[in-house]
Amino acid sequence: MKIIITSGGTSERIDDVRMITNRSTGKLGSLIADAFRGAAPDAEIIYVCSKTAVLPETPCDIIKIESAGELLQTLEKLLAAEKIDAVIHAMAVSDYTVKAVMPAGSAEQKKISSDHDNLTILLEKTPKVIGLIKQLQPETILVGFKLLSGVDEQTLLQAAHDLMIRNNCDFVLANDLSGIKSDCHEAVLIKPGASYVRLGSKQGIAEAIVKSVLAKIRS
Amino acid sequence: MKIIITSGGTSERIDDVRMITNRSTGKLGSLIADAFRGAAPDAEIIYVCSKTAVLPETPCDIIKIESAGELLQTLEKLLAAEKIDAVIHAMAVSDYTVKAVMPAGSAEQKKISSDHDNLTILLEKTPKVIGLIKQLQPETILVGFKLLSGVDEQTLLQAAHDLMIRNNCDFVLANDLSGIKSDCHEAVLIKPGASYVRLGSKQGIAEAIVKSVLAKIRS
Repeated sequence: MKIIITSGGTSERIDDVRMITNRSTGKLGSLIADAFRGAAPDAEIIYVCSKTAVLPETPCDIIKIESAGELLQTLEKLLAAEKIDAVIHAMAVSDYTVKAVMPAGSAEQKKISSDHDNLTILLEKTPKVIGLIKQLQPETILVGFKLLSGVDEQTLLQAAHDLMIRNNCDFVLANDLSGIKSDCHEAVLIKPGASYVRLGSKQGIAEAIVKSVLAKIRS
Repeated sequence: MKIIITSGGTSERIDDVRMITNRSTGKLGSLIADAFRGAAPDAEIIYVCSKTAVLPETPCDIIKIESAGELLQTLEKLLAAEKIDAVIHAMAVSDYTVKAVMPAGSAEQKKISSDHDNLTILLEKTPKVIGLIKQLQPETILVGFKLLSGVDEQTLLQAAHDLMIRNNCDFVLANDLSGIKSDCHEAVLIKPGASYVRLGSKQGIAEAIVKSVLAKIRS
């Protein structure tokens, strides 16, 4: 059994020093890897993560990437090379990348001067990594993640459902930033047929995802 | 003896999830704190750092901040409260903060939609934290840091010298990103009277800074 877990947050380069990133730490991804090992000791786990992501305790193949573009290339290669039983796409992927910085010139510049009064950064969409996964391996089991901030549950579940349909996900974990604290992590795991499982901790989320994915692999 | 060490990189909020930050890990700052403890066991060390910064092994007061604005407030408070013998300002402080994001509205927005084709981020200058330190405590010893990328040594030393003059630094550590690798860290410590000390590792840099600061405190 081969599993890919993506974890942490991608970052997009502004110059050699500065970048746009997000708050994802990779903690949940690391717990999912450890929960997988507990439930399926022989699983080969490929952990694709950002350079600062929390790493699992369990041994696994670790591939470090930085930008959404690098993540895309890495997954294309992995999914083209061999059969992957499941992809748990927990990484927070940048939706936008840097197209240009003004007045300092292009994003190729080494380090933009700190002497400007104002800077303008133009961003453009990154390719949607999640959309690629089932295109390359229609049989793999795909777990998507939807994070919003400060929305009501109805809005969150609708967005998660849209993500599921659009990308052919088998499961989607929906969460809102307001429900994520140091000691709890409220989330809803959406299963096929639109059944919902409510969860309250990162450990609980990790175990629920692993249980659902393994049940589907073994069914 | 009371010492403030700032360490890591600040980050500026784009929305609840996204931010602009930089590559600073806080490793050098942590080594400076540990070197201080080794050379001056009784020193009270206040370590002001970003949330993800590497922490020193030695016990010290740790204050975690996020943005350049929070760093400014924290240093104002510390420097107003009591005599500080030295400030080693190793933190990579954002030069720019987010003024507005378009078309998604203001930076107050919770999480900007990922559905725009393009986004524009307007940035404005942050207040220069380093300029404040000697204004609040003219007697404190101030170590500034200058990091550039891909410039020749002449340009780097000139920029470091300008930083020293402008902010009334006692010492400036000048380094170029091209000289920072996993196993080496080339830098020049500029001392009063424009004498230079060349250094080749993070540990060597930490020790040279501590030695210079202590010599000046004790002189």
